[in-house]
Amino acid sequence: MPVWKTAAIVGAGLIGASLGMALRERRLVERVIGVGRRAESLAAAKARGAVDETTTDLAAGVRDAELIVICTPVASIAQHAAEAAAACPSGATITDAGSTKSKIIADISSSSGRLGREVHFVGSHPLAGSEKAGPGAARSDLFAGRVSIVTPLESSQPNAVATVERMWSEVGARVMRMTPEEHDRVLGATSHLPHLVAAALAAATPPELLGLTGSGWLDTTRIAAGDPELWKQIYLANLGHSLRALADFERVLSRWRAALEAGDSSLLLALLQEGKQIRDAVGS
Amino acid sequence: MPVWKTAAIVGAGLIGASLGMALRERRLVERVIGVGRRAESLAAAKARGAVDETTTDLAAGVRDAELIVICTPVASIAQHAAEAAAACPSGATITDAGSTKSKIIADISSSSGRLGREVHFVGSHPLAGSEKAGPGAARSDLFAGRVSIVTPLESSQPNAVATVERMWSEVGARVMRMTPEEHDRVLGATSHLPHLVAAALAAATPPELLGLTGSGWLDTTRIAAGDPELWKQIYLANLGHSLRALADFERVLSRWRAALEAGDSSLLLALLQEGKQIRDAVGS
Repeated sequence: MPVWKTAAIVGAGLIGASLGMALRERRLVERVIGVGRRAESLAAAKARGAVDETTTDLAAGVRDAELIVICTPVASIAQHAAEAAAACPSGATITDAGSTKSKIIADISSSSGRLGREVHFVGSHPLAGSEKAGPGAARSDLFAGRVSIVTPLESSQPNAVATVERMWSEVGARVMRMTPEEHDRVLGATSHLPHLVAAALAAATPPELLGLTGSGWLDTTRIAAGDPELWKQIYLANLGHSLRALADFERVLSRWRAALEAGDSSLLLALLQEGKQIRDAVGS
Repeated sequence: MPVWKTAAIVGAGLIGASLGMALRERRLVERVIGVGRRAESLAAAKARGAVDETTTDLAAGVRDAELIVICTPVASIAQHAAEAAAACPSGATITDAGSTKSKIIADISSSSGRLGREVHFVGSHPLAGSEKAGPGAARSDLFAGRVSIVTPLESSQPNAVATVERMWSEVGARVMRMTPEEHDRVLGATSHLPHLVAAALAAATPPELLGLTGSGWLDTTRIAAGDPELWKQIYLANLGHSLRALADFERVLSRWRAALEAGDSSLLLALLQEGKQIRDAVGS
């Protein structure tokens, strides 16, 4: 028996289409409506079984939706949430899947309209993704076994929080609750720093040596293939925590520099052991 | 018909055992002798079909070998090559699989004994490996499609160079010739820098956040799981080029820092695009 009658997914990229596939495969929703800007993406999402219906008209797409998930790039989430709030039924719950939380939630809180009164927004972020983009890369098990962070405010309506947490649990994610600020600090270290490091490492490689890279270089730079426009928006929405994570990384690098300059065998070994210990603690 | 009658592989770890498997599977050598310090590793290599016979006595192991490959950690290669040269037949060819070349070759050139007269050393380095170590991780196709760099000197005996290049070609590698110095500059950028970056990124991650890492962090830090003792020896043998590669990386990072401090949207986009362009040029 479906949990929800109608859900709308705004943005039919990797995350939105994967969520639609997961909701439909598990028969959690009677009718999933895919909302997007580009008809081709929507058609691709529908072809993959991610949505039942599609529309490029956000207001029309959310008109009957009791559950709305905004899966668009970080910089447009607040605007799409406000548009959805203006057009959806009373009592609807809106969430998102954005990689940053503080700025989005502050922007939504300051937006006018029905949000927070008749319509409830609770932010979330599933820690799942890929350097591949678009509905073609979607998988119904993208969230299975992954953490999904939900970031309610003290003022959030408890039923809306429960709805959002249930949705992520039902598609297989392990739900963790954090404040928006805490989320952004964590992701600055575990996601935004690795991405900039991968991009910087790729950019620092002399082009004439690219034929001589091995599997280590490939692994270490893999995520640099991600969409620059999406990532630009993430950094702009999390400048402070990205900088703090970069500073932590630079402190370790300066110890590496000192070890190499001095040819310090025991410091080199200690640095390598620290890295291995942390990496081994996480596993593959 | 085998190309070589007897080959000795000194060091039965991932590289040595994989080479033995490749040589035996393709019937390139009549008899492969595995030489190592630890009887258990040698037994594991033999069980995997990497060698026909094993011994912990280097001199005995190379006594009949016309082809000798030193696959021990970087810091011990020159010593093992000298020991092998003292005990092997006249006319034998010795090579290695070490991740650095200049220091090893300088140490070998300055060593006394038969090397360079009756016995010929030509350095090499197959760009293949894994964060996993030991004969248990060995694969007969480890070198297939990979580059193997061979670093002859002007004084190298042409037949010995041809023998070493043929060996790597026969196990599926694409042979490239470089000077030892050029090799170390290239590997400083494409291998030694990525490893230190991965180790530094892992070490910079606050331990309490390790449960919140995603696939990006896992990829970017994967090689930090490599053996610290082996990597310490690599850095000590390539301090200058490792430092130069680190300086190139730090220059890109300082642009990232400036972009984040200024919230500079177009610089962030440019940095992300540079990284993606390089990464996409290499592929998966």
